[in-house]
Amino acid sequence: MSRPRLTILNQLGTATTRAIATSGAQVQVLDDACVSPWQQTAHAEILLTAPRNGWREAPQQAPPGWPGRLRWVHTASAGVDFYPRWLLDVPQVSCSRGVAAAPIAEFVLHALLAHTKELGQRRVTDPQQWHDGFAQVHTTPLGLLQGQTLGLLGYGAIGQAIAVRAQALGMHVLALRQSAAPVGDAGVGTVRSLPELLALSDHLVLALPATAATYHIINAHTLAHARAGLHLVNIARGSLVDQTALLAALDAGRLSGATLDVTDPEPLPTGHLLYTHPRVRLTPHISWSASNAVAATAEKFVVNLHRYLHGQPLLDQVDPQRGY
Amino acid sequence: MSRPRLTILNQLGTATTRAIATSGAQVQVLDDACVSPWQQTAHAEILLTAPRNGWREAPQQAPPGWPGRLRWVHTASAGVDFYPRWLLDVPQVSCSRGVAAAPIAEFVLHALLAHTKELGQRRVTDPQQWHDGFAQVHTTPLGLLQGQTLGLLGYGAIGQAIAVRAQALGMHVLALRQSAAPVGDAGVGTVRSLPELLALSDHLVLALPATAATYHIINAHTLAHARAGLHLVNIARGSLVDQTALLAALDAGRLSGATLDVTDPEPLPTGHLLYTHPRVRLTPHISWSASNAVAATAEKFVVNLHRYLHGQPLLDQVDPQRGY
Repeated sequence: MSRPRLTILNQLGTATTRAIATSGAQVQVLDDACVSPWQQTAHAEILLTAPRNGWREAPQQAPPGWPGRLRWVHTASAGVDFYPRWLLDVPQVSCSRGVAAAPIAEFVLHALLAHTKELGQRRVTDPQQWHDGFAQVHTTPLGLLQGQTLGLLGYGAIGQAIAVRAQALGMHVLALRQSAAPVGDAGVGTVRSLPELLALSDHLVLALPATAATYHIINAHTLAHARAGLHLVNIARGSLVDQTALLAALDAGRLSGATLDVTDPEPLPTGHLLYTHPRVRLTPHISWSASNAVAATAEKFVVNLHRYLHGQPLLDQVDPQRGY
Repeated sequence: MSRPRLTILNQLGTATTRAIATSGAQVQVLDDACVSPWQQTAHAEILLTAPRNGWREAPQQAPPGWPGRLRWVHTASAGVDFYPRWLLDVPQVSCSRGVAAAPIAEFVLHALLAHTKELGQRRVTDPQQWHDGFAQVHTTPLGLLQGQTLGLLGYGAIGQAIAVRAQALGMHVLALRQSAAPVGDAGVGTVRSLPELLALSDHLVLALPATAATYHIINAHTLAHARAGLHLVNIARGSLVDQTALLAALDAGRLSGATLDVTDPEPLPTGHLLYTHPRVRLTPHISWSASNAVAATAEKFVVNLHRYLHGQPLLDQVDPQRGY
């Protein structure tokens, strides 16, 4: 009689189950996006989940017997801040660091171009508009990213993907990294503090994890250092920004705009001023989205699954203490 | 008595006159944007002009005595197709090749991102829209430029500036060049024909001069080779495209969209279908615009002026036979 096969609870959908099946791994997959994973710890050794699927209904405290048979949790997200803290109390947690780096970098580039060139407002539908629009750029030219300075708060996979693209556009790129690891990439400048980064940047992109240490890292105090006309881009987590302070800086004209793909909470309540502020572009947490997202996430998991089955250290492990 | 100083008729405005004055060149500048330059050939040896300033009223045939004292015409544009042919019948003609390469490349990148990710349509203003928008990307993900193929028809300064940026985004770049000069840039693939380029490209950017040889180079015959869903971007000249054939290809769904910063004529007449076609983004010939455009154009002219005064060959000369 063969040894019972290792069981994975997959909450990412059938395409991911297929990818696991065709990878050759000798595993059994429970494909259920709707089950509460903390009730399945008697069955699964591996949990493959995402920051949705009922996690909002998870208990505050670890359920009795947690983590049961669970040995490894892998999340389709880069961050683990969405989950209850006790989810990290399993032998190994890994994340999908880098999978969304290219899509998010494209989203950021799009935001920088839209803010600087405002082409969405330059379309014309008749000859008079054409003449007006043509005349307008002779008095108010389109902006140019070339030569502007991009600040990156956080310099992980996402920050690096943004930097490469921004440098090709001839932007000056500055990065401030939390971890001790130096930036070290050719042409990317480093600064020693957030106030310095804010003072030097035309655009500041938040690309760092949400932890206790980064809660409201953008606040009235730090925003006071911002270069006049700064454009803030948040593709990380809403909790990084004190939204009241942000609104004040936008109203005062200190910031020229904010591109917010994330807010705190999500969604914001009806009537929140950020929804309709003329200097704000608000999107529903979609910067990670890409036509290849499901396949790329599955591919990353399958690589780690084979490492797991061969007793090798997992890639992209999450440090429960650090929170990312 | 000193020898009379060389006279420049400058039609680009006072900022350019100041730039010439502060360059140290011993010249006299007639600053007049409104005069008809062909009536000033008794006064000026150098004409600095742009594709406006009354050139539409120029005579079809060269005026009597042309070019008079004129020895050199420099244009603020990259192309000379806007002018009457006889303007090129002066000893030297030079252009502002490359000055607008970065602004135009940014415009193109913006167009590619807008077409692929459609973020302008993803903004939300209340919680229900937020939930709908978040759900939407799970069934219809955002597009991704990484991995797509960009075709460049023309590979001068503008094409090269686009290529560098597109490669940093992880796009495959293919170029087809009219001149014998090989593309030769690392990672830029070459094709042998326009049908081949059309068949391989997700986005095709027209970045070549308007000449008799390139008139309606995009027509029903060539468009028949387009990859299904091609996005056409024209930042060059409207006359490159047979607009009737373009409309047919858009209506048939063969092309997924067209970003047209140029048309033929400019502007299009009231009610032209391209103004309001749902797959068309039409802007009023503004892709060259940039906050530094005037300064960069003046700088380029001043460099050439010093070469002229020192008897050195001019940079960026226009070949009257070739037309660019």
